[in-house]
Amino acid sequence: MNDTLNEAETLDPDALAAELANEHAADIVERLNAEPLETASVALSAMPLERAVEVLDEPGLERGADLVEAQTPERAAALLTAMSADRRAEVFRHLDAAPRDRLLDGLDLETRTSLTKLLAYPENTAGSIMTTEFVGVPATWTVGEALRHIRMVESTRETIYAIYVLDPKTKALVKATSLRRLITGESQHSVLSVCPPRRPLTVSPLTDREDVARLMSKYDLLAVPVVDRRGQVLGIVTVDDIIDAMIEESTEDVQKFGGMEALDAPYMDIGFVRMIQKRAGWLCALFLGEMLTASAMQHFESELEKAVVLTLFIPLIMSSGGNSGSQATSLIIRAVALQEVRLRDWWRVALRELPTGLTLGAILGLVGILRITLWQNLGLFDYGEHWRLVACTVGAALVGIVTFGSLAGSMLPFILKRIGFDPASASAPFVATLVDVTGLVIYFSIALIFLRGTLL
Amino acid sequence: MNDTLNEAETLDPDALAAELANEHAADIVERLNAEPLETASVALSAMPLERAVEVLDEPGLERGADLVEAQTPERAAALLTAMSADRRAEVFRHLDAAPRDRLLDGLDLETRTSLTKLLAYPENTAGSIMTTEFVGVPATWTVGEALRHIRMVESTRETIYAIYVLDPKTKALVKATSLRRLITGESQHSVLSVCPPRRPLTVSPLTDREDVARLMSKYDLLAVPVVDRRGQVLGIVTVDDIIDAMIEESTEDVQKFGGMEALDAPYMDIGFVRMIQKRAGWLCALFLGEMLTASAMQHFESELEKAVVLTLFIPLIMSSGGNSGSQATSLIIRAVALQEVRLRDWWRVALRELPTGLTLGAILGLVGILRITLWQNLGLFDYGEHWRLVACTVGAALVGIVTFGSLAGSMLPFILKRIGFDPASASAPFVATLVDVTGLVIYFSIALIFLRGTLL
Repeated sequence: MNDTLNEAETLDPDALAAELANEHAADIVERLNAEPLETASVALSAMPLERAVEVLDEPGLERGADLVEAQTPERAAALLTAMSADRRAEVFRHLDAAPRDRLLDGLDLETRTSLTKLLAYPENTAGSIMTTEFVGVPATWTVGEALRHIRMVESTRETIYAIYVLDPKTKALVKATSLRRLITGESQHSVLSVCPPRRPLTVSPLTDREDVARLMSKYDLLAVPVVDRRGQVLGIVTVDDIIDAMIEESTEDVQKFGGMEALDAPYMDIGFVRMIQKRAGWLCALFLGEMLTASAMQHFESELEKAVVLTLFIPLIMSSGGNSGSQATSLIIRAVALQEVRLRDWWRVALRELPTGLTLGAILGLVGILRITLWQNLGLFDYGEHWRLVACTVGAALVGIVTFGSLAGSMLPFILKRIGFDPASASAPFVATLVDVTGLVIYFSIALIFLRGTLL
Repeated sequence: MNDTLNEAETLDPDALAAELANEHAADIVERLNAEPLETASVALSAMPLERAVEVLDEPGLERGADLVEAQTPERAAALLTAMSADRRAEVFRHLDAAPRDRLLDGLDLETRTSLTKLLAYPENTAGSIMTTEFVGVPATWTVGEALRHIRMVESTRETIYAIYVLDPKTKALVKATSLRRLITGESQHSVLSVCPPRRPLTVSPLTDREDVARLMSKYDLLAVPVVDRRGQVLGIVTVDDIIDAMIEESTEDVQKFGGMEALDAPYMDIGFVRMIQKRAGWLCALFLGEMLTASAMQHFESELEKAVVLTLFIPLIMSSGGNSGSQATSLIIRAVALQEVRLRDWWRVALRELPTGLTLGAILGLVGILRITLWQNLGLFDYGEHWRLVACTVGAALVGIVTFGSLAGSMLPFILKRIGFDPASASAPFVATLVDVTGLVIYFSIALIFLRGTLL
């Protein structure tokens, strides 16, 4: 990445365009992304139209909207008309109102209509990532006719491997077949003869792209048709769109789990102010939540003054609760995302996490008691004359807090989903905060039971 | 999932097999997964061979090895011979030594050789997920000959959309083309006439599957050839294998980030003991690390006794450091996975995280000071006569700890990668533990500066 950058600095845009003439479009994109906007847009104008369209059709291209905006109006119109429908919509989504209207005026009616339709679908839906360029043939055609048609329209279709057989009158989807089946069929037979018997799998334009990905991965589809209520095909989502969507989603999931808003831009590209905005919100929310720990501590102030020895173990105990909660949350977030468990399975999960938490808590509790016993007997630290009771308090508190952490961590995604939030918002810091406050209360309550009459 | 389960309980295996006869293989798999092993294996034996092979070829099938093992030796051999090479290898990977050898003996020499080769590749490499069934044609053939060949071998190939043109003598890969290009070509022309000019993209059998996924997603490939050092094609990795691999990887990433070993089985299926094993290891390691907080606190015991007010803010301050660290780690783990930043970019990241951490710390510090001032002046709590100094201590400690958290969290994945570990092992609890110990030292050091001569 850096090497490319350094080499590039000495090149003028024309030389760059010439140098890139024979490269793979994805490599050109990588190169253009690393250049300043001006160099990149001049290089783009120096390319043959077909090549420039290939580059703009790559989902990896950054600043696509800026690059199109920087072309002459005629060139921009030609590029936009030749681009694939889904990428064109993506460019328009990133344009400001003024250039958007100007560029829209330069397009022919058909392109404009298709574009406006795509732009109307909300982000992350099948409608927003589909392309309208697919192969549809009437059910009355033969295999030979269909193949001839495919050869003719090939260059203007995103994929020709999925073929949709339509009702000749209503244009509704009848069957879905594949080029694979088509080329093995008899030329004079009906296209229906090479269609699988079952009803085609479809999605609606408002289906979430994650659900589309799940469907395509389950049935190993290369494309899935997006149909409206009357069964007419609006477009198709292809497997490469889904892969890009999956990579984006897993980045978002990890960032959300890390306790922040998803960045939706590469780490190195995002501005300082945006970075602070994405992180400060959750950090402040968690901080305000965590303030309850100060309130809880204030509540137990007299106990703290009497038994300072108790404070020594506060970080240890609290963090163990947070860690077990973080484990449980990560498990359940993925299980929910993969639909291994559903909302109504919450009690099954609770029944698994309860014994798991108790066991994990018992293990940590034993380690904790061992540590205090060792330090006391080896003379490394003096926990006072009631050290045995202190050790028991710490051990029992660990059992309670780790169990509570596992339960709270596993239930939080369900609760969030139940009240209409994304279960993936249940971040590790969120769970830790939740468990910290309760953990303190559990710790001091147990201390009151064990130590009343001695230390407290 | 549950509905299927409940219905199924009343069905005998034959009825189940009959009922499933017309369903999509992926749906049959879902159904079989939900059945007890015995019912599932009887249902599998009741299916026509071709159908049973389709089911076994689905990557979503659980207990595939057990199901094959439960068939008669003849049926098992027939199934294994007809299965796709990559799925067959997957079944053998899950067999114990005895049934493995027994089933291996039942296979013909060719199948056995191909299988042994695939089994030799380590897990998660291109070699371990590739299939050996691809379309290869000599460079001397015409388009028409290639198409005739494809029609003939179609039923035994995982994909026919990617076509590999081989040197007729050495069998080395010369070009890669697609069915799409082939059907648009002239029948009597050479296959080379429909090949793109550039050299085909390839991977080696030992390439990590994540890198294969990255390559395929960058260049929008439906398949990528796996070649040996002499350039001969060993097999191909197809896009559906990659999607399955990506889903697995992102589950593993989230679970690791949650602070545990990846489960490699659905949450609901894993046994109690395995679950404890996967979670207890990291939990104990983190617990032992966190014990250093107790040591740090013991070190400052005299200060704690003098100024109990300081303990009130320990959880608040420590958790803020952990939270900012968790954010930074999640960002860098993904940026490293997507190759947005490389190992040598660590100092660029550090230069971004330093001002980000300072700003975030300043924001939280102000909120913290505000809180103490408010509580004091509203009479909600009395932090003593030196409450202003306490507030300053808390504010300054937050700046220091949040900055340290952001830096440590962002550098940890780099350090892990540098010393040869998976950067994704830098879990949120791991970072929190790291920051907790240092955070305490920072807090008390700042307290000593601000409060010496007054409280301390």
